[in-house]
Amino acid sequence: MNEVISKIIEKIQPVSPQLLEKAQAHLDSLTKPPGSLGKLEELAKRYIAIRDGKTSHLEKISTVVFAADHGVTEEGVSAYPSEVTSQMVMNFLNQGAAVNVLANHYHAEVTIVDIGVNFEFQDQPKLLDRKIALGTKNFANEPSMTRAQAEASIEIGIQIASESVSNGADIFTTGEMGIGNTTPSSAIYAILGNIPVGDVTGRGTGIDDLTLEKKISVIKNALELHQPDPNDPIDILAKIGGFEIGGIAGLILGAAAHKVPIVVDGFISGAGAAIALKLNPTVGDYIFPSHRSSEPGHKIFFELLGHPPLLDLNMRLGEGTGALLAVGLIESAVKIYNEMATFQSAGVSTKE
Amino acid sequence: MNEVISKIIEKIQPVSPQLLEKAQAHLDSLTKPPGSLGKLEELAKRYIAIRDGKTSHLEKISTVVFAADHGVTEEGVSAYPSEVTSQMVMNFLNQGAAVNVLANHYHAEVTIVDIGVNFEFQDQPKLLDRKIALGTKNFANEPSMTRAQAEASIEIGIQIASESVSNGADIFTTGEMGIGNTTPSSAIYAILGNIPVGDVTGRGTGIDDLTLEKKISVIKNALELHQPDPNDPIDILAKIGGFEIGGIAGLILGAAAHKVPIVVDGFISGAGAAIALKLNPTVGDYIFPSHRSSEPGHKIFFELLGHPPLLDLNMRLGEGTGALLAVGLIESAVKIYNEMATFQSAGVSTKE
Repeated sequence: MNEVISKIIEKIQPVSPQLLEKAQAHLDSLTKPPGSLGKLEELAKRYIAIRDGKTSHLEKISTVVFAADHGVTEEGVSAYPSEVTSQMVMNFLNQGAAVNVLANHYHAEVTIVDIGVNFEFQDQPKLLDRKIALGTKNFANEPSMTRAQAEASIEIGIQIASESVSNGADIFTTGEMGIGNTTPSSAIYAILGNIPVGDVTGRGTGIDDLTLEKKISVIKNALELHQPDPNDPIDILAKIGGFEIGGIAGLILGAAAHKVPIVVDGFISGAGAAIALKLNPTVGDYIFPSHRSSEPGHKIFFELLGHPPLLDLNMRLGEGTGALLAVGLIESAVKIYNEMATFQSAGVSTKE
Repeated sequence: MNEVISKIIEKIQPVSPQLLEKAQAHLDSLTKPPGSLGKLEELAKRYIAIRDGKTSHLEKISTVVFAADHGVTEEGVSAYPSEVTSQMVMNFLNQGAAVNVLANHYHAEVTIVDIGVNFEFQDQPKLLDRKIALGTKNFANEPSMTRAQAEASIEIGIQIASESVSNGADIFTTGEMGIGNTTPSSAIYAILGNIPVGDVTGRGTGIDDLTLEKKISVIKNALELHQPDPNDPIDILAKIGGFEIGGIAGLILGAAAHKVPIVVDGFISGAGAAIALKLNPTVGDYIFPSHRSSEPGHKIFFELLGHPPLLDLNMRLGEGTGALLAVGLIESAVKIYNEMATFQSAGVSTKE
């Protein structure tokens, strides 16, 4: 494995149980019955323990959206034409997409990364150019990318994490854009979850029955053809993955190595997170899952992570929209931790 | 029935199906696959249709917290002493409680209403004094309140709604404080849901097995003793209810009559909403449910309303905390409605 990746994987340490206990003790001193804020308390506890010694506020929320194209769209697996990837990148840069609206609302700074869009953008200073190729190859016929490209995609994510941490990021949220990318994601879930392709594959942006059958058969045949090694996540990424999925995996590894929490968006981000978890399960200590996508394969991510999602809003847009809603809940939880009175300070009687 | 109440009940009109359709058409023109924002789209659609012709922003969020005491605490049904009600009211006024932190975070204005606390507050200009009595009677022995008091509690809620609407409220969120109030709420759910008391009664702020048994038996005996009429919500409120529960019911009726959306908090607020829904089921058009409480009886509210909760975070604090988290999601949804680009304006290709 590439040295940048192996070094960052080694650097990841579990969150301290003592710091988690200390945070819970503070939560229990606040004017509310112990545990009565449910999952909000879990969010606050883990955030505070991860950020020990640093600011306990969510001052700088860094939303990273990786965009890439997919050769497999040639097979007719998506409801939208693949030029929508580059059109949506322009929409992101012009602040018109759902992720922009939510990022503004939740005061997050958005970085749009071209990690492999099939379009040559001209003069877009706000677009981070980390293009590996003009989209992946069509994995129905050949591997999506080379092993070196798969490692490069992860390394790009790691580097973006490091730079953002140097610039003061308190928390990351993941996001992506790539017409066709539920297809490689479903393939990744099928392998990592070791379950039939039909059980993890859904309708993406809204395909009909016939296209869904086609999508399942394309994935099945590709797994048969390439035989990705279930114990080698980089092999999986290379053979049937996508550049944005590798970027997300790298961002998660980098965030965890730097002890910065990361909120993982929906189905595609979960596939990236699954790759990261397979490279080092300890990254799970730093991952906050956001919402449950309507795509059926998403359950594999929650199983690998060992936590259920926070939200279940029947969303299936991606871009990072679910992660931003979740960051709103995390911020609420952390404010409760920081701002509430204690039983003692407020002169409120405790349990009888 | 009291004329103020009957007039407001008559005034409530269903939300226009045409306006709902118009809002959905706008949502479908935005740069995202149709329906891909799931429940966020439903929130935006209903908010916009309800607020037709008025501002489509959540500029003024009005959080109303009704506080009252409960005579039934004499039976030992709660984990906390009843003086905690007045102590928590002081904590609210001093900005130390969870509801204050969340209201500040979600830019909501909080009104704390003493509708029946067993304490004479002195010189608290920020506390709205609408005290009906120094707490309810112990319904183990006698009705909680007279029918006139039950009507007065609803009328107080209606008046607060009217005043807040005059002052520009765009949306309401409900909240409450009252040691012991899961007991009357459970009793209300048992009657309105027509199901056994044991199935709707939970541990409130955290009681042990023995106290839970006691709580169930107190409610069972009271229902036997008072025989509240399941088709007369004011009779139910009077015999085994609470002042804050009546206040919440009135606030909801008033909001709906003035075509202002109202977000209903948890278990106790749901009991108030259930009373309002029984008085006029059309109020459901204006109700946004927030979270599912850990109390088992809460399901009755969602059944009566016909909508599931937005959030399921294992919370059981009350005060209005769940409703404020939900208002955050509603605001996100409405911003998406207002701020996203359309396929046409952004030059993005539509479905193939």
